[in-house]
Amino acid sequence: MPKTEHWQWYVEEFTPTELHHHAIDETYFAGRTAFQNVAVIRTATFGKMLVLDGDTQSAQADEKIYHETLVHPALAASASPDDVLILGGGEGATLREALRCPDVRRCTMVDIDGDVVELSKRYLPEWSDGAFDDPRARVIVGDALAFLRDDDGTYGAILSDLTEPLADSPSNPLFSRTVFADIKRRLAPSGVYALQASTAGFHNMALHAKMARTLRRFYRYVRSFYAHVPAFDNDWAFLACSDAVDVAALPAARIDAYVNRLRGENYFYDDETHRRLFSLPLYLRRELAREGDVFE
Amino acid sequence: MPKTEHWQWYVEEFTPTELHHHAIDETYFAGRTAFQNVAVIRTATFGKMLVLDGDTQSAQADEKIYHETLVHPALAASASPDDVLILGGGEGATLREALRCPDVRRCTMVDIDGDVVELSKRYLPEWSDGAFDDPRARVIVGDALAFLRDDDGTYGAILSDLTEPLADSPSNPLFSRTVFADIKRRLAPSGVYALQASTAGFHNMALHAKMARTLRRFYRYVRSFYAHVPAFDNDWAFLACSDAVDVAALPAARIDAYVNRLRGENYFYDDETHRRLFSLPLYLRRELAREGDVFE
Amino acid sequence: MPKTEHWQWYVEEFTPTELHHHAIDETYFAGRTAFQNVAVIRTATFGKMLVLDGDTQSAQADEKIYHETLVHPALAASASPDDVLILGGGEGATLREALRCPDVRRCTMVDIDGDVVELSKRYLPEWSDGAFDDPRARVIVGDALAFLRDDDGTYGAILSDLTEPLADSPSNPLFSRTVFADIKRRLAPSGVYALQASTAGFHNMALHAKMARTLRRFYRYVRSFYAHVPAFDNDWAFLACSDAVDVAALPAARIDAYVNRLRGENYFYDDETHRRLFSLPLYLRRELAREGDVFE
Amino acid sequence: MPKTEHWQWYVEEFTPTELHHHAIDETYFAGRTAFQNVAVIRTATFGKMLVLDGDTQSAQADEKIYHETLVHPALAASASPDDVLILGGGEGATLREALRCPDVRRCTMVDIDGDVVELSKRYLPEWSDGAFDDPRARVIVGDALAFLRDDDGTYGAILSDLTEPLADSPSNPLFSRTVFADIKRRLAPSGVYALQASTAGFHNMALHAKMARTLRRFYRYVRSFYAHVPAFDNDWAFLACSDAVDVAALPAARIDAYVNRLRGENYFYDDETHRRLFSLPLYLRRELAREGDVFE
Repeated sequence: MPKTEHWQWYVEEFTPTELHHHAIDETYFAGRTAFQNVAVIRTATFGKMLVLDGDTQSAQADEKIYHETLVHPALAASASPDDVLILGGGEGATLREALRCPDVRRCTMVDIDGDVVELSKRYLPEWSDGAFDDPRARVIVGDALAFLRDDDGTYGAILSDLTEPLADSPSNPLFSRTVFADIKRRLAPSGVYALQASTAGFHNMALHAKMARTLRRFYRYVRSFYAHVPAFDNDWAFLACSDAVDVAALPAARIDAYVNRLRGENYFYDDETHRRLFSLPLYLRRELAREGDVFE
Repeated sequence: MPKTEHWQWYVEEFTPTELHHHAIDETYFAGRTAFQNVAVIRTATFGKMLVLDGDTQSAQADEKIYHETLVHPALAASASPDDVLILGGGEGATLREALRCPDVRRCTMVDIDGDVVELSKRYLPEWSDGAFDDPRARVIVGDALAFLRDDDGTYGAILSDLTEPLADSPSNPLFSRTVFADIKRRLAPSGVYALQASTAGFHNMALHAKMARTLRRFYRYVRSFYAHVPAFDNDWAFLACSDAVDVAALPAARIDAYVNRLRGENYFYDDETHRRLFSLPLYLRRELAREGDVFE
Repeated sequence: MPKTEHWQWYVEEFTPTELHHHAIDETYFAGRTAFQNVAVIRTATFGKMLVLDGDTQSAQADEKIYHETLVHPALAASASPDDVLILGGGEGATLREALRCPDVRRCTMVDIDGDVVELSKRYLPEWSDGAFDDPRARVIVGDALAFLRDDDGTYGAILSDLTEPLADSPSNPLFSRTVFADIKRRLAPSGVYALQASTAGFHNMALHAKMARTLRRFYRYVRSFYAHVPAFDNDWAFLACSDAVDVAALPAARIDAYVNRLRGENYFYDDETHRRLFSLPLYLRRELAREGDVFE
Repeated sequence: MPKTEHWQWYVEEFTPTELHHHAIDETYFAGRTAFQNVAVIRTATFGKMLVLDGDTQSAQADEKIYHETLVHPALAASASPDDVLILGGGEGATLREALRCPDVRRCTMVDIDGDVVELSKRYLPEWSDGAFDDPRARVIVGDALAFLRDDDGTYGAILSDLTEPLADSPSNPLFSRTVFADIKRRLAPSGVYALQASTAGFHNMALHAKMARTLRRFYRYVRSFYAHVPAFDNDWAFLACSDAVDVAALPAARIDAYVNRLRGENYFYDDETHRRLFSLPLYLRRELAREGDVFE
């Protein structure tokens, strides 16, 4: 009897009753850093995948959906995207996207897990695509919390690319009002703060709504946007926060001009995609309009 | 050691290397009709689910995303949605949505599998929600192919809610140029033909593009739209075809007026959702612009 | 792409890290009785399977390994197997095996779950194979605990075919010194008490050893025996207890004579199989020789 | 929600409808040699496991069941176990068991896959336990087929520890009458040839019976024996072949004497275990008595 070639599987558990099995073609790395479990694998549908603590972080085949969405609305909307700060972002793909914008003169990335950065350079070079060697890149291995407290820079865009603030995650302490206040202090008055902000599926949008509620206390405009990322098996949500600009209402001409000046070609994002991202379905708008708890 | 309560699982196979496991809370029915395997189960996340030939057809928790998307853009755009034809749609939810529109005076539904209709009435009454008893409903158990050939009605909207035209599916013969021509003959000149049209994820959008290419030979306006349906684990695509109206460009005022006249409240669809549905990401627009084969 | 025919799976969990997936060909019944979850399914390898609370109870293809092993060593060794008592045994296969012995003039079976008995009659007639209609059969739906306390019969063989005494199982209260004492009171002085007695695999033989230790306080001879039952994915263990006879040392001639008088043909058991069953590997003998706790 | 720690699973496929999932605690190695896919993993229940082409080869927790069974009946029965030949046996555990016998003065092991030998030394040192450094060990990386043809030694015991002769396996050409004849030429007249010989479960004993039928043409005594190896999820079968000695009937005194002279302590095997191994259940004896095809 012919045997399947697939004897090793990556099982992502969404809830104890919902599992996604991916057959593994190759395991490049599986181990533990000081902060988290890390695996780098390859599957037939998604190509190489980075898995942290059993959660898909990004996949070769569709990471551009995620990274273009995190970076470009914020940079297109910022009045001064010359100095950009990335919190997390170990794979280097958020850095890559930011540096495609010629207005960016310096991009600082602070990630606590230097091992993930090194593993990404070694196994996932397609993610950073040379960005770590760009003279405009400043990569700091360290605690974003401490960085935000001690740094005195002012950034035209701050991009938060942290893992979900689950109980055991190294990102957990970064979701608090103190940290949100620190972030705002580092943001230029005309700047935009964009963060990956949990999921927007009908069955798990509560954490996103809590982040939105919290950030409305800090910013005049707090806009939800989301894209379905197949490798995440989820509608992935983001928030764009600013006192100066309503990113959801960014004019088409401005987006077109921004996209045209980027080095290289986009895969996902342009003005039409922007409309999709920021046009929310009824059930999500209703959830976002509800009262509820906030991060303390 | 405490045992999991979940010993029975529904495994949906997307490819031999990508599987989604749903723990089954209850199996209401599992058997075979003359046309296909049918199961009605219940899971914690998605509630009741209808599974045909191992593929999720619809789930209690998010079927409104799918059914509102299939029905309302077409009915909002049609100049005369008084007489509506549904191909397939055995669960009765497409019928339910169509009958929420007070302009609809008759809605004919033709499904080949009477057993699925009966099972849906018995186990999935939430789907039809009384629609089968609406005096405007005309439910025909029979071959849509023969119906289209023999019928002489003219419909302001035709909604195709067939299963995927896979090799063994009863829907397979319904995706051909002959049938598309038959459908057009039954459509009012100012009418809209909307069909569920396979998937739009980056990894499986070829079949959708083939449908779009084929239908462009029949209609002046052929617009793709899609929604992520969590229970399908996919970006589900549709096509809106018309010689009279560009559904993608439907004015907000018209959609607002249409939605306001519906009986009951929408869960998913309104003007803002319409923008989302019809705003396509770059990679999908590129795929749709490519040359390729068509249905013969 | 051709789809697997198997979309429904029975997953038996041995530990949270060891799972066995069986593709389900047909689900005959899945529901809950007053006492437990019950499913009757069919798989390609094992035929029909009875599943109680997510554990395989018996399978058409190899149930004879289990039931011949539970019944025949005890009946072959008993000086007076004319009156037999079965505790549990809802499927009717233990009854069937006991009634194959022409010396048995009455066989009383006490099972608490009448629904399992009825479901077995309906869906698993191969198990009882007419035994429920044998005039020597006396089937009592009721609590074995109460029966043992109130009954005043004397049995030449008592066969305990209860489910594992896990925390939530209806069998749990039946594993106590009080009940063991009640059983002994009902056993003829020359009789044999045989029980299914958990597993004997290297990784889970502690419960078996605990049962053996407990029963050594009640009987002169307490012998472990076991068979690998593929549908259980385990080495399944039993205990043969008697004050009169060392079942492990039963002479070949006696076993041959016993087997020859049975109605019909055995699948698994005879004298050579008896040697296999009662010849224990070193690691199990070492485990059985250890001190440890007992049932109170 | 607390996430399971287990996101990576080893799935052993027995048939397309019977799968065993083992949660992986650690992956030491996963790659491909010139001959086969190799993985070395660790699981909670079985400890370290060697997996070749998706099949479990041996596991730390119960490999002694397999290796003591392959080696000791043959060596106990051989009149002259001073020179031993092992075919296959890359992990080094068959070598280890053979060298525990003080009568063995030389043990030659021929395995085609030097990478498996090296990986075993590195990751599975518990298997060989120093045997590779024993001066009596002669390890030859090479084709057993060529070795058997070209060698002119005479061995008191030949132990075949090859993988299953499946279509794509490197072991496939070694199951032929030519090779069986070559093996017999290398065996001392008073020697014993023992081989792992597929499975003996009720559902897959055909290949074992075919091996037995073929070897009966070469030897006076061909005895089947088997043990349930939990990590294999199967009753694993062996054959002991000799013109001089009926291994199944080996006297207890001889086994006792043999075992007592071994260095170190056995985990599984002694005289009582020998009785278990060679006492076959009825259904297997019936299968072995049937006519059928043979290896050509």
